[in-house]
Amino acid sequence: MSLQDTAGTTKLMLDDLHVGQVFRSESYVMDVEKIKAFALEFDPQPFHTDEAASAGTFFGELVASGWHTAGVTMRLLVASLPISGGLIGAGAEISWTRPTRPGDELYVESEIIEIRPSAKNPARGMVTVRSITKNQDGKTVQSITSRMVVPRRLPDSV
Amino acid sequence: MSLQDTAGTTKLMLDDLHVGQVFRSESYVMDVEKIKAFALEFDPQPFHTDEAASAGTFFGELVASGWHTAGVTMRLLVASLPISGGLIGAGAEISWTRPTRPGDELYVESEIIEIRPSAKNPARGMVTVRSITKNQDGKTVQSITSRMVVPRRLPDSV
Repeated sequence: MSLQDTAGTTKLMLDDLHVGQVFRSESYVMDVEKIKAFALEFDPQPFHTDEAASAGTFFGELVASGWHTAGVTMRLLVASLPISGGLIGAGAEISWTRPTRPGDELYVESEIIEIRPSAKNPARGMVTVRSITKNQDGKTVQSITSRMVVPRRLPDSV
Repeated sequence: MSLQDTAGTTKLMLDDLHVGQVFRSESYVMDVEKIKAFALEFDPQPFHTDEAASAGTFFGELVASGWHTAGVTMRLLVASLPISGGLIGAGAEISWTRPTRPGDELYVESEIIEIRPSAKNPARGMVTVRSITKNQDGKTVQSITSRMVVPRRLPDSV
């Protein structure tokens, strides 16, 4: 039986997942002031902090830090991937295919790619999830393939 | 000749880099209130937002979101890797080997791993950088291998 959280959402364990399973998040609009605030704290470069200064740069316009896009993606994943015990990442491969701009409306489509019970610990396993972050035009701005630690139902709890 | 920015720091182009070159950042202390604020915005899970609620979780204590560690790493890289035109990431492989805790003092050691001029565009290339984020005990909390777009000196500008 799946655990229920206090909000009544069914939380999924490793045993409840299958390869090819898809989850889609809500959407999130990238606010220009938040783009600048994030960049000032974590990625203070002119193409992320200032419209005028961004003109002469590689991007030629103000764009969000890729790490901001990654953070927003995580926020959307937390709300759309109901894994028991939470989303606990061991690592990830990330690529930014296209800049995220102010006003972009992002959403994330996630697919279960691999499920691997731990050989050592019967209470958990590693699940690989590919999450594609798209904008309002359906164009991919970021792809991330994450390895997550997911709890497994023990035989005597079935 | 290398470009000079307004602060007088020499900015490095692809031609100025060599495999094995190492850069070390300043250090940065992880503040508990910033850990919670980051998590509330980007990774709202009990083990990142609330000491009491973190007790019964995988971590058993309050730890920073891995994406917060990644953001702080980027901040330290911006100040320690003086690449001409800025740090422009195409993608990265990231792994979190150990949690980051409140009060941890992080720094980043980066090494140039590969330098590959573009076959199509003589004005740039791709540089692979491995950045290890360590805490005050010298233990690795995060490893990231990033692919960055780096400008190349054109023949007539030598």
